[in-house]
Amino acid sequence: MQDGPLQHLIKTLSGLPGLGNRSARRIALHMLAHKNQTMLPLADLLKRTAEEIRTCSICGNLDMPDPCNICQDARRSKTQICVVAQVSDLWAIERTSAYKGQYHVLGGLLSALDGIGPDQLNLTGLIARTADPDITEVILALSATVDGQSTAHYIADHINRPQLEVTHLAHGVPVGGELDYLDDGTITTALRSRKKST
Amino acid sequence: MQDGPLQHLIKTLSGLPGLGNRSARRIALHMLAHKNQTMLPLADLLKRTAEEIRTCSICGNLDMPDPCNICQDARRSKTQICVVAQVSDLWAIERTSAYKGQYHVLGGLLSALDGIGPDQLNLTGLIARTADPDITEVILALSATVDGQSTAHYIADHINRPQLEVTHLAHGVPVGGELDYLDDGTITTALRSRKKST
Repeated sequence: MQDGPLQHLIKTLSGLPGLGNRSARRIALHMLAHKNQTMLPLADLLKRTAEEIRTCSICGNLDMPDPCNICQDARRSKTQICVVAQVSDLWAIERTSAYKGQYHVLGGLLSALDGIGPDQLNLTGLIARTADPDITEVILALSATVDGQSTAHYIADHINRPQLEVTHLAHGVPVGGELDYLDDGTITTALRSRKKST
Repeated sequence: MQDGPLQHLIKTLSGLPGLGNRSARRIALHMLAHKNQTMLPLADLLKRTAEEIRTCSICGNLDMPDPCNICQDARRSKTQICVVAQVSDLWAIERTSAYKGQYHVLGGLLSALDGIGPDQLNLTGLIARTADPDITEVILALSATVDGQSTAHYIADHINRPQLEVTHLAHGVPVGGELDYLDDGTITTALRSRKKST
């Protein structure tokens, strides 16, 4: 194999998350077999996305307008902010249609191991937003991991204001989850937070 | 999520081999976080590859010049043709540096189940090439599957010419393979084709 654009393409593809050399080669060959249906449209879409999608200056979401469509939506409640680590978490919550408030994307979690401190996250923006007296609740929708919990504690410590409720997602048995496959920590938490059956 | 270029990008990515919705979302977000290092260079590479890489009119390999660099290489033997199903198989053989002859890429295998007949493959080109009296050996480097073997039989039947040797890759225990994990067919073949230890 010579050192042409195809080899560069395979190398770039293999650097994407979840892809290795073999899957990158497979994708490159698939696209070469479908130049007009896949390869050229994808090149165009990548360029358009890079140009048109920007980070919302209020909440950190990715969208075409700035402020994003969620921040601009007059039908959404302005009293709640749901704090998530990544845009993919925001998308996961939006897919449920169970939440109609505002969001705040941190861009990651505090992590002593990975050397991520408060300055690397979009935390000052969050603290400034929660100072608004209209905000009555901050929902911390962070992972139930060490990093997620330490980030939640940091935020709860820094947005101390009376009349501001700080909540977090309920822990327990996932809907559809089998008890036998769950870890002890989840079962213990689910038992302690048990609710009256109605 | 609105129906913007980001959603189209995720949809296009999720149609690539080996990628689903979740991995496509992950890749799209990764690229948006690295617009200048990954997203724009990838768009450019896709466009360049689609424009510059063509199928070799002699052997079916993918390369910038036509005939491809392998067909043009004066140092490679002109007496052997190695028949492979896909360009990825050609690459796999080239990585070994164990073969210095010509190639012929069929573009697939005969398959009754998938409805792929001789007309869908690059077979007439192969039969024409093997009529050249300079060619003394055709190596069938096809998978040891039903489709691979029926394609091999079809080719062997159609390139009948005295002085033309038709060979296939040896079957046996993969180098580094453990006997305990091999199927019975492979072990039987390896036993029957056993060789004198030197």
